[in-house]
Amino acid sequence: MGYKIAVVGATGLVGQEMLKILYERKIPISELYAFASAKSEGTYVEFGNEKIKVEKATADGIAKAEFALFSIGEEISLELAPEIAKKGTIIIDNSNAFRMDPEVPLVIPEINPEDLKNHKNIIANPNCSTIQMLVALNPLHKRWKLKRIFVATYQSVSGKGKDAIDELLTSTSAFLKREDHPPKVFPHPIAFNLIPHIDSFEDENYTREEMKMVRETHKILHDPTIKVSPTCVRTPVIRGHSEVINAEFQDDFSLEEVFEVLSNAPGVRVLDEPSNKVYPMPIFCEGRDEVFVGRIRKDLFNPRSINMWVVSDNIRKGAALNAIQILEYLIK
Amino acid sequence: MGYKIAVVGATGLVGQEMLKILYERKIPISELYAFASAKSEGTYVEFGNEKIKVEKATADGIAKAEFALFSIGEEISLELAPEIAKKGTIIIDNSNAFRMDPEVPLVIPEINPEDLKNHKNIIANPNCSTIQMLVALNPLHKRWKLKRIFVATYQSVSGKGKDAIDELLTSTSAFLKREDHPPKVFPHPIAFNLIPHIDSFEDENYTREEMKMVRETHKILHDPTIKVSPTCVRTPVIRGHSEVINAEFQDDFSLEEVFEVLSNAPGVRVLDEPSNKVYPMPIFCEGRDEVFVGRIRKDLFNPRSINMWVVSDNIRKGAALNAIQILEYLIK
Repeated sequence: MGYKIAVVGATGLVGQEMLKILYERKIPISELYAFASAKSEGTYVEFGNEKIKVEKATADGIAKAEFALFSIGEEISLELAPEIAKKGTIIIDNSNAFRMDPEVPLVIPEINPEDLKNHKNIIANPNCSTIQMLVALNPLHKRWKLKRIFVATYQSVSGKGKDAIDELLTSTSAFLKREDHPPKVFPHPIAFNLIPHIDSFEDENYTREEMKMVRETHKILHDPTIKVSPTCVRTPVIRGHSEVINAEFQDDFSLEEVFEVLSNAPGVRVLDEPSNKVYPMPIFCEGRDEVFVGRIRKDLFNPRSINMWVVSDNIRKGAALNAIQILEYLIK
Repeated sequence: MGYKIAVVGATGLVGQEMLKILYERKIPISELYAFASAKSEGTYVEFGNEKIKVEKATADGIAKAEFALFSIGEEISLELAPEIAKKGTIIIDNSNAFRMDPEVPLVIPEINPEDLKNHKNIIANPNCSTIQMLVALNPLHKRWKLKRIFVATYQSVSGKGKDAIDELLTSTSAFLKREDHPPKVFPHPIAFNLIPHIDSFEDENYTREEMKMVRETHKILHDPTIKVSPTCVRTPVIRGHSEVINAEFQDDFSLEEVFEVLSNAPGVRVLDEPSNKVYPMPIFCEGRDEVFVGRIRKDLFNPRSINMWVVSDNIRKGAALNAIQILEYLIK
């Protein structure tokens, strides 16, 4: 007994993590299909000890599955998903293609699983930076109502895929040997540098990555009044996104209550013992499911605001794991 | 004609940059003394084409100078500076030792040079993170009055000295060869990582680095009502600190006015053409005098707030250059 499941974009970082998590979490599967773009056709991906042959992603092929986990990029999602959805396959899409479509639920299972009820065979997985921010903030929002979020991100290169990891490692190695290494994946050198530019620029000089954090927060929390002020920065980190967050709430609370709420919140792990040098860091979050929260403290001038530092594996909770948690909701 | 000038801590990163800037800016010098801790005694430092023999830092030795530029650490400053000041030498100290002493001016020459009038032979140079933040914000503050600052820093390892640069480079190289390299300078591995912990932890789980940004802002701007909410993070960058800043002002303004004010502000260089991928980045600020400001945009939900991205060479404007600009004020 089990479900026919397709992973679309199976050779990418997120696709491979999806296969790993499907296996780890023992999702009941009767048939597993792996799809990718034409250039990976005929290669193999791993699923536990099995090897799965990669097929070229086509609407007919993918429609064999009952559930298709998409992480193959916005363009292919836009091209294939509507047709496949019409044939009855339920798609959980990790791209930006359908996130703001009013007919498409945008879901973080810890926060708004009830939105899954009204899907029309396409469900969107939020952006990685939004997911970890809201997993940490929503438990507090439910108690004291969020008014305003100031967020500065410290994003790892893995958010841009395998080539981006290669570019960081290769260019860092070249830098150390005093060799030149012109950037291809990033707009500027990333080795020992910071680039305040992720995705394209939209109006008013916000990047699309920044606007995703605003729009997705409003949609997921069903509250367009929350003021979100984001700045997104690429850092020379391999995996794991970090965020400095200052959040202001409507109601009064104590710091003890914040710790209590976060310590009991689903998907959250508090790591906050400064005297023992314990706080979240990206190198220790790889392969972990949780959103790690530390450096939790009251704003010095506003008793209804807190500062915190939030770190999570962007490939896992920020992408593959969240999608599979959505799948688990759908099949339970 | 010229002045007798001592650089105390002459073998360190900041001391060497001080020597370089003294030479570049043609400060009139009749005698130049280089002091350092006992372990560097008898070595030489460069000043233009000359070599200066390093003497062990003692009160009597340093008191030969009319002006002493200190960058030798808080403990030695505390031990030597008061005695040397009594002997008539004017000290410009780069450490945290005297910054909050009400008898000691804390000065950024672009902002509060008038505070130099009342010195009692000790003048403090502010912390690097404070300097670049305030050089960028003060011109706006003078026009529209600052109410609140959220700041998230992305600090380079050079703020912790030469050993820290060595540790970043060596541990990064070890990481790429899959070798172990336990941290010595930093509390955790810094290669491809982020550490939300700079200086020691104080009360309420703010670090001393964060509290410096609060207290120094109040002292330099003579306004303890400005709400400063800082989070300081060490990044795997060699040189140049970066900051995400969201600043709220009391009065109304247009974005055009912000650009105009910043473009004409002393010590500021606006780099903000997103469509051409132009914005400040740490790898391009080394050896530059300016505080670079980019990604300037209105807060999406508060017309009296702006977001911006501020980058500067922490060893130069954040330390050595600022001290020498103070010296220039004193001798002009």
